[in-house]
Amino acid sequence: MSGLVLHPLNAPLIPLLGEWQGPGEGAYPTIESFSYGETLVFGHAGKPFVAMNQRTKERKSGVPLHAEAGYFRPQGDGSTELVLSQPSGIVEILTGSITETEAGVEVDVSSVGVHTAPSAKLVRETRRRYVVEGDTLTFDFWMAAMGEPLTHHLTSRLTRQG
Amino acid sequence: MSGLVLHPLNAPLIPLLGEWQGPGEGAYPTIESFSYGETLVFGHAGKPFVAMNQRTKERKSGVPLHAEAGYFRPQGDGSTELVLSQPSGIVEILTGSITETEAGVEVDVSSVGVHTAPSAKLVRETRRRYVVEGDTLTFDFWMAAMGEPLTHHLTSRLTRQG
Repeated sequence: MSGLVLHPLNAPLIPLLGEWQGPGEGAYPTIESFSYGETLVFGHAGKPFVAMNQRTKERKSGVPLHAEAGYFRPQGDGSTELVLSQPSGIVEILTGSITETEAGVEVDVSSVGVHTAPSAKLVRETRRRYVVEGDTLTFDFWMAAMGEPLTHHLTSRLTRQG
Repeated sequence: MSGLVLHPLNAPLIPLLGEWQGPGEGAYPTIESFSYGETLVFGHAGKPFVAMNQRTKERKSGVPLHAEAGYFRPQGDGSTELVLSQPSGIVEILTGSITETEAGVEVDVSSVGVHTAPSAKLVRETRRRYVVEGDTLTFDFWMAAMGEPLTHHLTSRLTRQG
């Protein structure tokens, strides 16, 4: 997706663009804690959105765990929308803020709609925060599911690749 | 995403797997007809879903037009779910059928939920049909939007790559 001129609405998201990898840790009241390896890719196509593709694997076996794919829609006023889908049968619409910082950018979005396919497990609410500081990206994820209120579930610390 | 053993629930979708490219035509009561080039990629990760990634471009200029990314969730009884998101700010949940044929497979899904981000244009209903016959994939798309009922909007005829 390189070679295309960046759409001006994407300018605050420049620090996100590229591929990131690193370890993550998960915890939730209803399950045992676990660790994983994450790959997160952000790309643009010259239009006013940034594509996001995430996947995680078990660290030792390499077995795939989670994935999600979606699109950030920066609105030009410091806010952004994020739409995404997950193979677990969930689609989400989130809105929130883009904050430019000295060392990068912070994107913090919360769900305004979480919708599940007929056979999927119910998730009621989510929040995602992506913090870029130079060549480090810290991702945090909260969700309300399994009868729990909005609760921190995942954190990963990724390094810019290439 | 190769090298992983295919999940048995994905077996009827084997004819879809891989990368497809070719021309498409669009029409709708509210706009002028148009043509485009499409790339459609289906992959698996050893789990009970098939990832789908689609993008279209203007045929002459190569300028990106549309994109969507999502996941088929075959249910093992001839039915499937599809969840997807689009940079236009739309997320969809669709359900429908997988029909194995002599020459390939036909997947026909209709929306059970179409949800839009606050700044997105409203789409009320969609239907997607993917028909594989050997190394040809025909894709058709219907939508109800702009005050129109469910109306055929896109057709493309793609060839298996590689």
